[in-house]
Amino acid sequence: MLLCDIGNTSYHFNNSTQDFKHSVKDFNPASITEKVFFISVNVQSKQKLQILDNWIDLEQFIDRSKYYETMGIDRIVALASVTNAVVIDAGSAITVDVVKKGSFEGGFIYPGMRAMQECYKNISSALDYSFNFELDLGKMAKNSQDAISYGYLKPFVDEIKSKNLPIILTGGDASEFKKLFPDAILDQELIFNGMKKIITKAGLC
Amino acid sequence: MLLCDIGNTSYHFNNSTQDFKHSVKDFNPASITEKVFFISVNVQSKQKLQILDNWIDLEQFIDRSKYYETMGIDRIVALASVTNAVVIDAGSAITVDVVKKGSFEGGFIYPGMRAMQECYKNISSALDYSFNFELDLGKMAKNSQDAISYGYLKPFVDEIKSKNLPIILTGGDASEFKKLFPDAILDQELIFNGMKKIITKAGLC
Repeated sequence: MLLCDIGNTSYHFNNSTQDFKHSVKDFNPASITEKVFFISVNVQSKQKLQILDNWIDLEQFIDRSKYYETMGIDRIVALASVTNAVVIDAGSAITVDVVKKGSFEGGFIYPGMRAMQECYKNISSALDYSFNFELDLGKMAKNSQDAISYGYLKPFVDEIKSKNLPIILTGGDASEFKKLFPDAILDQELIFNGMKKIITKAGLC
Repeated sequence: MLLCDIGNTSYHFNNSTQDFKHSVKDFNPASITEKVFFISVNVQSKQKLQILDNWIDLEQFIDRSKYYETMGIDRIVALASVTNAVVIDAGSAITVDVVKKGSFEGGFIYPGMRAMQECYKNISSALDYSFNFELDLGKMAKNSQDAISYGYLKPFVDEIKSKNLPIILTGGDASEFKKLFPDAILDQELIFNGMKKIITKAGLC
């Protein structure tokens, strides 16, 4: 079974043996002839796929009622197999969602590490540093790199910890954030497992 | 006594009767003939002023040893009259500095509200919202505007409150942030009071 999670930059494919990505810019979805179950936060890709019969949009089988109207379909699907956790999807944006005893409590959106680094740089070239994920967050900063690293990471880490729930990390930057949450579960299959659950529930295969 | 705090965008003047700003782009400092005591984080303006005898750079009279090497001179001066507080200077960047019993404990730098709004917008047009400063931070978000407002504001507010110190707010966006810290002292003269203290200590007038 071929699955695909389409974002703003890539088509992320997964089947029982492989996990691979193609750039949204270059990839021609008509080049795939087998059946693909997909979700897409990318409106343009979604429209393109409407004319391809072998691409099945899972969005139509998802119960949105538990979530809010403008919530990205990828966030909803990632939560499909979660009953009690804070889910951090660390990509170009970081989405944080809280599920407690099976019920969606809400979430928030924080800038991803590249976007935030760009943000500091745009304020002033004096703030053009990469983040130090090994910073001791127990101490306030006494140099510029630590001052922006602390600003980006410390309040975020405390906010997540304040939920007192198991933490699940997914997304392209998950391994960086794992340094801040050593007890977190790193699960890069979260969204695909959610898709499989939806496929089974809808009796699609 | 005419004082001037020069930033990346403006010359901010203050004397006993007036407070006014001129854009860095258009303003000609040679148009002022009286004595001006200034500080500048703007390297270009600072260089320009070296040839004007009536512009006195206060940086030479400041003891930097208590602070870190790359710390902006405006942050150091703002702390000159503070003995026990968290100082939040909310401008294009938000600098947060902690002074406890007269000793500088360190600080951090967080993006200002316009920079952060731009940051979310650059990630995705779906995140192009202004922040809701009246959001109930006790609840996680269930719509996109609240999701970015919560992400920007909630971890920051909790970080500040965790210091358990009086809060002093200054800078162009201080009044927006006052909504989040109702007990904070709003002090737009903080930097000028710091400058006066340095002038007195150095016996400059």
